[in-house]
Amino acid sequence: MHRQTITTSTNQYDVFVGKDILGNLKDYLPKPYRNIMIITDSVVNELYTEKVVANLPNDAKVSVSVVPTGEASKSMENYYQLLTEAIDYQLDRKSLIIALGGGMIGDLAGFVAATYMRGIDFIQVPTTILAHDSSVGGKVAINHPEGKNLIGSFYPPQAVLYDIDTLNSLPAKEKRSGYAEVVKHGFISNFAYLEDIWKVDLTQEIDSHVLTDHLQKGISVKAKIVEQDEKESNIRKFLNFGHTLGHAIESELGYGQITHGEAVGIGMLFAIKVSEQRLNSTLPYDTLYNWLSKNHYPLNLPAISTKKLVERMKIDKKSENAIVQMVLLQEIGVPVTEDIPDYDLTNLLENFMRELDS
Amino acid sequence: MHRQTITTSTNQYDVFVGKDILGNLKDYLPKPYRNIMIITDSVVNELYTEKVVANLPNDAKVSVSVVPTGEASKSMENYYQLLTEAIDYQLDRKSLIIALGGGMIGDLAGFVAATYMRGIDFIQVPTTILAHDSSVGGKVAINHPEGKNLIGSFYPPQAVLYDIDTLNSLPAKEKRSGYAEVVKHGFISNFAYLEDIWKVDLTQEIDSHVLTDHLQKGISVKAKIVEQDEKESNIRKFLNFGHTLGHAIESELGYGQITHGEAVGIGMLFAIKVSEQRLNSTLPYDTLYNWLSKNHYPLNLPAISTKKLVERMKIDKKSENAIVQMVLLQEIGVPVTEDIPDYDLTNLLENFMRELDS
Repeated sequence: MHRQTITTSTNQYDVFVGKDILGNLKDYLPKPYRNIMIITDSVVNELYTEKVVANLPNDAKVSVSVVPTGEASKSMENYYQLLTEAIDYQLDRKSLIIALGGGMIGDLAGFVAATYMRGIDFIQVPTTILAHDSSVGGKVAINHPEGKNLIGSFYPPQAVLYDIDTLNSLPAKEKRSGYAEVVKHGFISNFAYLEDIWKVDLTQEIDSHVLTDHLQKGISVKAKIVEQDEKESNIRKFLNFGHTLGHAIESELGYGQITHGEAVGIGMLFAIKVSEQRLNSTLPYDTLYNWLSKNHYPLNLPAISTKKLVERMKIDKKSENAIVQMVLLQEIGVPVTEDIPDYDLTNLLENFMRELDS
Repeated sequence: MHRQTITTSTNQYDVFVGKDILGNLKDYLPKPYRNIMIITDSVVNELYTEKVVANLPNDAKVSVSVVPTGEASKSMENYYQLLTEAIDYQLDRKSLIIALGGGMIGDLAGFVAATYMRGIDFIQVPTTILAHDSSVGGKVAINHPEGKNLIGSFYPPQAVLYDIDTLNSLPAKEKRSGYAEVVKHGFISNFAYLEDIWKVDLTQEIDSHVLTDHLQKGISVKAKIVEQDEKESNIRKFLNFGHTLGHAIESELGYGQITHGEAVGIGMLFAIKVSEQRLNSTLPYDTLYNWLSKNHYPLNLPAISTKKLVERMKIDKKSENAIVQMVLLQEIGVPVTEDIPDYDLTNLLENFMRELDS
């Protein structure tokens, strides 16, 4: 059992990573709650809701709301529906929302908690590798058709309860999606961690000690950054390495057509290319490409207009005054941000897409 | 010109109250902004948007979004529409939203600002008496059909710019609505302030010095409370004097059928009756009743079911574990909170409604 305390501007919360947390859930609640709403998705619901409900305090009223699996559920419609259900369940300001699922559920349920009666407690119970990233840092959001996570808040949870046992049964594309963020945490922190990650074969079962170690390290990288810059004024932006193009691809293809991490995989390749060309960095492009390829990440996109991708990048939250800002690497562990004028960005992207296709 | 600085957990901001602020708007902006979105309502738009736009910095891009006047505009539909317009206007994290209007606009535009890209700056430019209350304290929200302000955040503005010249032309019912909160601030603070308020005749034009004085005092009462308890854990609840029944009446009649302050006027009468009966307080019920009546506050409600009102009060944000909590007065200036069991509440309300009707 690994425990890490995260300090935010408004609270402190613990992240627990380990085995059989779900089976002992009530022991991990930071305070008593009388009315609890579980928000989960249709797949996770089948797997874990029963176990979670069975291990919550007996004297709590527990209600369950289920949304369809997939990023498309982070919609305004579901957000509103869940708020309505929270009212129906008579949740009050002392009640708790449990986000049981991957990053999509954490974002959606977290935004419901952040805005229901101006904010009630919520706890993240992640069930994907990807959620090692999204469950820490207090960002919650839903999507707008014009862009991912455009509507949201900074709203930290009261705890993150990460049961490693839930990760064994993940489908291959979910493993890929999650490991892309592990790779990102490697790129922006240190060489040794990254070297260790290249050894993982996602097509096989991952040893639980290796997995726990990788996740702890990733959480630690992220925690260190968000503790220094919760509201993303400066260094938190580094966590967006690979995400500028990644988000644009996701929203251009339509959420659900490609996983978040798969899109970030391509985004990281692009960020490396741009780093090499604009900062003269020497970076392991081929190593990343081969690792992604070997692990069956999609690297051939359907015909997709660079013009539209650039437009998407311009309305990304990270852009200011409509100039795209990318996170680049001077070297592994040394991220920087750089504004890329539209004209250069278009050229860089066209060359990259051509190279990727060939 | 009166200036008051409010300290919150996340920032400090100034509240300016005085004459001809709109004509010098750019001097009051706390920092430069390149992209500004004005959110206003259809009535205020006709009166002031042109003046506001003319007095913003020349180098800023300014866009205007207008929603219909009235509480019904604090809807999920308008919220989403405004977010979409913010995207269309290319607002980024360094942009500004100006809430130009009454409390409805402050709440709606503030919630858009709070959740657009996880929060951008906004400035309150109130144009009603009522907004002396709502523009201070950082509460923003939209309504749910099941209850007022059920969806929202705590999100302080960067400034409140209160131009007293905008208050002269308010329609009578808006004056009534605003002065109910002034009266509330009197009841929960001190006798002298309240005695002073009884002298006002809302059917006549109010002297601008008297008005400025009453508003400053009201803002000061509120500011002192919210600085001590921003998130409404304890004493901030006192500001809900008259609001438990007030909110229930508003939502039961449908927003827009009765103004907020008119509903709070009835709510204060009820809170006084309950205070007298449960705390043995001696309070000026008749003075308030006569003042409300003389100023044409509606005191005869259409047939309205007490059962439904009690249900509404139970889903109010202030209730916990489905027991209604009311703010009562031990004496003027000494508010307390008290849980009222359903059975007692129903009886008290039935008696009160009967007395009001007779």
